[in-house]
Amino acid sequence: MSQTGEFELIELLKQIANEAAANPDLILGIGDDAAAWRYGESVQLVTADMLVEGIHFNLDAISWHDLGWKALAVNISDIAAMGGTPTYALISLGLPSNTKVEQVIEMYRGMAEIAHKFGMSIIGGDTTESPVLTIGPAVIGKTTNDRLMTRSGAIPDDLIAVTGNLGASAAGLKMLEKILQFDLETDSILRESHLRPSPRIEEGKVLSRHGVKVAIDISDGLIADIAHICRASQVSAKIFAENIPIHQAVKERFAKDALNLALSGGEDYELLFTAREEIIEKIKQASSFPITIIGEITNEKSGSVIILDENRKQITLSKTGWEHFGHER
Amino acid sequence: MSQTGEFELIELLKQIANEAAANPDLILGIGDDAAAWRYGESVQLVTADMLVEGIHFNLDAISWHDLGWKALAVNISDIAAMGGTPTYALISLGLPSNTKVEQVIEMYRGMAEIAHKFGMSIIGGDTTESPVLTIGPAVIGKTTNDRLMTRSGAIPDDLIAVTGNLGASAAGLKMLEKILQFDLETDSILRESHLRPSPRIEEGKVLSRHGVKVAIDISDGLIADIAHICRASQVSAKIFAENIPIHQAVKERFAKDALNLALSGGEDYELLFTAREEIIEKIKQASSFPITIIGEITNEKSGSVIILDENRKQITLSKTGWEHFGHER
Repeated sequence: MSQTGEFELIELLKQIANEAAANPDLILGIGDDAAAWRYGESVQLVTADMLVEGIHFNLDAISWHDLGWKALAVNISDIAAMGGTPTYALISLGLPSNTKVEQVIEMYRGMAEIAHKFGMSIIGGDTTESPVLTIGPAVIGKTTNDRLMTRSGAIPDDLIAVTGNLGASAAGLKMLEKILQFDLETDSILRESHLRPSPRIEEGKVLSRHGVKVAIDISDGLIADIAHICRASQVSAKIFAENIPIHQAVKERFAKDALNLALSGGEDYELLFTAREEIIEKIKQASSFPITIIGEITNEKSGSVIILDENRKQITLSKTGWEHFGHER
Repeated sequence: MSQTGEFELIELLKQIANEAAANPDLILGIGDDAAAWRYGESVQLVTADMLVEGIHFNLDAISWHDLGWKALAVNISDIAAMGGTPTYALISLGLPSNTKVEQVIEMYRGMAEIAHKFGMSIIGGDTTESPVLTIGPAVIGKTTNDRLMTRSGAIPDDLIAVTGNLGASAAGLKMLEKILQFDLETDSILRESHLRPSPRIEEGKVLSRHGVKVAIDISDGLIADIAHICRASQVSAKIFAENIPIHQAVKERFAKDALNLALSGGEDYELLFTAREEIIEKIKQASSFPITIIGEITNEKSGSVIILDENRKQITLSKTGWEHFGHER
C-alpha cells in the first residue's frame, strides 16, 4: 500500500464511516488532527496515533523513557492543534514476548512524566502480546466551540505562520541515524528536539483565544502539513523560503540540507496556522514564544503549495536540495 | 512476559499512572472494563482493547468483515459491562505492506455495520504501516453516576448471575481451528458466536436500571472474570457447576468438554454480575433475555473462585476436564 494509496484509503474509510451513523453532536469526524463533538457547553476532543517499532522508532536510537514521552507527545500535539487542553490518556501496548518488565515500566514513566507536565491522567488501556512493539495511545481533551481550530476554513489572503523554529527534529534523527559527532550543546538540542518534542498546548490556546480558526501541528513536515490545510480548505499556498524560521543549530550544522529539513523533515510538533494579519500581529505582541509569518493563502482550489525564493521565483525539491523551478531536469 | 507477569505489570503501571496526575473528576482509572469520569451530569466512559494477528485472530479463520465487527464488538462489550451506551469509536490500524485496499475496506464495513447497529459514529483514528496486522479501537460511551457498574463492590451473600448461554464462542473457535464438521445449523450458531459476538448493551442497561452495581463482560472466561470481580471487591466466590447455562449446541456436540468450554473458554461477551436475590428476581421478571443464577459471593478476602458439583463437592480442572477435587493426582 503506497503513500498515495494510504491517502485514498483514508478518504474511502471516511465515506464508509459516514455511512455508519450520523450523530448531531459530532463536529469533526475522520480527517482532522482530532475528532470533536459537542458536549453541553464544551467540545470534547479525542485523537489516536499508533507508533510501531521499525516504522516510527528504532530502539537503538531512543530510550524506553523517551519513547513513552514521545508516544504521548505526538498525540497531545494533535490536541494542541485543535486549541484544546488534554485531559486523559489511554495506552494500548503490544509487547513482544522478550520485552522486560523494567523496559515497560521505564516507558510508562516517560508517559507519566509528560502526562504530569500537562495535568493529564493516564486512565486505562490494554497490554497484549505482539510480535512487534506497538504503542497505541488515545488522548482525550476539551475546548469550547468558539476556540476550536480545524484544518478547514483557510481563506485567500490569510497569512500563514508557525510557532517556534523548524528542522531540529529531523536533524536530530539524522544525527542519531548517521552517528554524527557534534559539540555537546548541539547534540543535546537536536537529540531533545527529536526524542522529547514539546507539544504546543499553551501556544495553541493563545492562538485560539486570539481568534485563530485554522491550525495543524507539524508532524509530516511543513509542506505536507500546509497541503493538508489547503486540501481541507480548498485553497492553495505560497511559502517564502527566506522567511522559514530554521533552527539555528540546523543552519550551522546542516548548511546545505537545512531548508530541506525545515520544509520536509517533519516531527517538529510546532503549530502551523493561518489568520488575518491583524490577528497574527496581536498574537506576536501578546505572546512570549516566537511567531513567524512564512507565506500566504491563495485562491486556487487545487490545494497546491509552492515555495518561492527571495526573488519570488519558484523553487522545487531535487535530490540535492531545493533548486529553482525547472532546473532539476 | 508470562500471564502472571502481565497481571503484575498492570498493577505496577497502575501505580505509575496514579503518580502522574490526580483529576478530581476521575471515577475509575486503570483496572476496570472501561475508564470513567464525571462530566457535568453524566459519566463518560472510554475503553481500548487492541487485537493483533496471530495472537487474537487468524485470518484463515475469520473474514475481514467479521474481523472488523469483532474488533469493535469486544470494545463495545466493555461499555456494556459498565451499564453504558456506546457513542463514538476511533480506529487505529497497523497494516502490513501487502494488505489490499479492498481488505481494509471490508474490515471497515464490518466496523460500520456494528457501529450502525448500536447508533455509534466512527469518528477518527490512524492508519500506519506495521509488520503485523494490528487493530486498535478506542470506544467512547456514557452513562450516569447512579447507573455505573464496576468490578468492585461485590458483597458476601450477593448472588452471581449471567446473561445468555456460555461456551459457544470457544466451541466455535475449536470447530474452526480443528475444521470440525457439523450440521449447517450448529456450524452457523458456533461460527456466529465466535466471529460475530453481540455486545450486551441493552442487557447492561436493564441490569443497571434495576440497581445492579457490579458487572463484567465475559471475555477471559467465566472463572477468570469472576476472579477479576473477586479481586477488585476483596471477596471470594462459589460457582455451582450444574447451574451453568451451557449453550445447547455445546452440550450436544462437545459433551465431555462442554463444562470446560463454558467455564474457561471465554469470548462469550455475556454479562456476569452480582446482586441481591430480590434484584435478580425482578430483572428476570422484567427482561426478555435469559438470566441464570450460577453462584454466590462469600466473605473470604482471598479472591478465590471454587466450583461445586451437584452434591456441593468441589471440582477442579484437570487435563481431561472437570473432576472432583483431589482426584486429579
